[in-house]
Amino acid sequence: MTAESIETIAVVGGTGELGGALARRLAHSGRKVIIGSRTAERAIAAARALSGEVGSEVKGDSNGAAAREAGIVLVAVPYAAQAGTLQEIRAFVQGKIVIDTTVPLVPPKVMRVQLPTEGSAAVIAQRILGSEVRVVSAFHNVSAHKLAADGDVDCDILVFGDDKTAREIAVQLIGSCGLRALHGGPLANSAASEALTSVLIFINKTYRVDGAGIRITGALTIPS
Amino acid sequence: MTAESIETIAVVGGTGELGGALARRLAHSGRKVIIGSRTAERAIAAARALSGEVGSEVKGDSNGAAAREAGIVLVAVPYAAQAGTLQEIRAFVQGKIVIDTTVPLVPPKVMRVQLPTEGSAAVIAQRILGSEVRVVSAFHNVSAHKLAADGDVDCDILVFGDDKTAREIAVQLIGSCGLRALHGGPLANSAASEALTSVLIFINKTYRVDGAGIRITGALTIPS
Repeated sequence: MTAESIETIAVVGGTGELGGALARRLAHSGRKVIIGSRTAERAIAAARALSGEVGSEVKGDSNGAAAREAGIVLVAVPYAAQAGTLQEIRAFVQGKIVIDTTVPLVPPKVMRVQLPTEGSAAVIAQRILGSEVRVVSAFHNVSAHKLAADGDVDCDILVFGDDKTAREIAVQLIGSCGLRALHGGPLANSAASEALTSVLIFINKTYRVDGAGIRITGALTIPS
Repeated sequence: MTAESIETIAVVGGTGELGGALARRLAHSGRKVIIGSRTAERAIAAARALSGEVGSEVKGDSNGAAAREAGIVLVAVPYAAQAGTLQEIRAFVQGKIVIDTTVPLVPPKVMRVQLPTEGSAAVIAQRILGSEVRVVSAFHNVSAHKLAADGDVDCDILVFGDDKTAREIAVQLIGSCGLRALHGGPLANSAASEALTSVLIFINKTYRVDGAGIRITGALTIPS
């Protein structure tokens, strides 16, 4: 574990369902967490509640301020808010690791794969943030409410990124939150995981499943 | 099970690794199988070997002739051969179900997702064959050599198609071959499964896995 990976982590969009679940798991794992939100007040309220639960200080601030203070910035906002949010934090994440969780769902047809012309939301994130930001993507397939509950989640977290070191830091970070994270390859490969979300939503509806997920099979040994 | 689903099944590209494995599983399940190949001779030789193994007649013929005789046509050829093969069988599959297995891998970078501009190989198949053909796609993620071995395969088969009846017939057909098949939604969703193959190849290399696969999790009950 490098020093970088144990720095403060900002969760931009940390008052949303996915962001809140991630902030909670990170705080429980002993990380220093700053919850970001469009309005600092909401973030501070969420942080206060989480602080009480975990028994250590969790901060809250505007998305930009949270990103500025952190070494690793997790972005958990809906697709429609992705571009705006990334523009908002762009200046504060240069040289840092950004873990983007955006799934390019296009309502109302969320059960239909509709990947952007750029290929994936992760590639869009890299373009917006610029080449000095080490973009990693993850958390596309896990249901937020399962992540929000305690205990094991029956879903692997595929992690994508062009910078291997940043990807490894993300894999370790996610692993320390009680989840199985796997390297999935370059950022372009994020398309697979992003597309799969629509398939899982389709399966949820067709088979009446509450939060279908995926597991990679094949006697996998995870290098330590 | 409808009458249509138990008709003769052609395996176009049935002398290849994936096609051969599929032909073998179908023949073992008691289906009438015709192996297709670019040259009838190779198909006939493969069919003779398989007939001996399963103890019932398996036929072999050219891809076009095999497709003409069958009610359901499985296509198992490499991406580079997809368009040519589909043109070859186009006239013989009108009104029928075609199960396309093409994964749009672009060598040498097979570990990198490089989906076609059309979105997926399955959508390309539909465009080439025309709207009178009920195109279904499947078998993108299962390793051919695991499929070729006897016994259970630790990988779900996601099945895509715009025609629900055709998709259901394919799901049942695959299920009868000892595999777990799941409806994955419209043909456009095939992009998820096709892209995932590059991720699985990446995982095979990174984690030294012999044929990583996927399982859908979430207490799934499959409707009968």
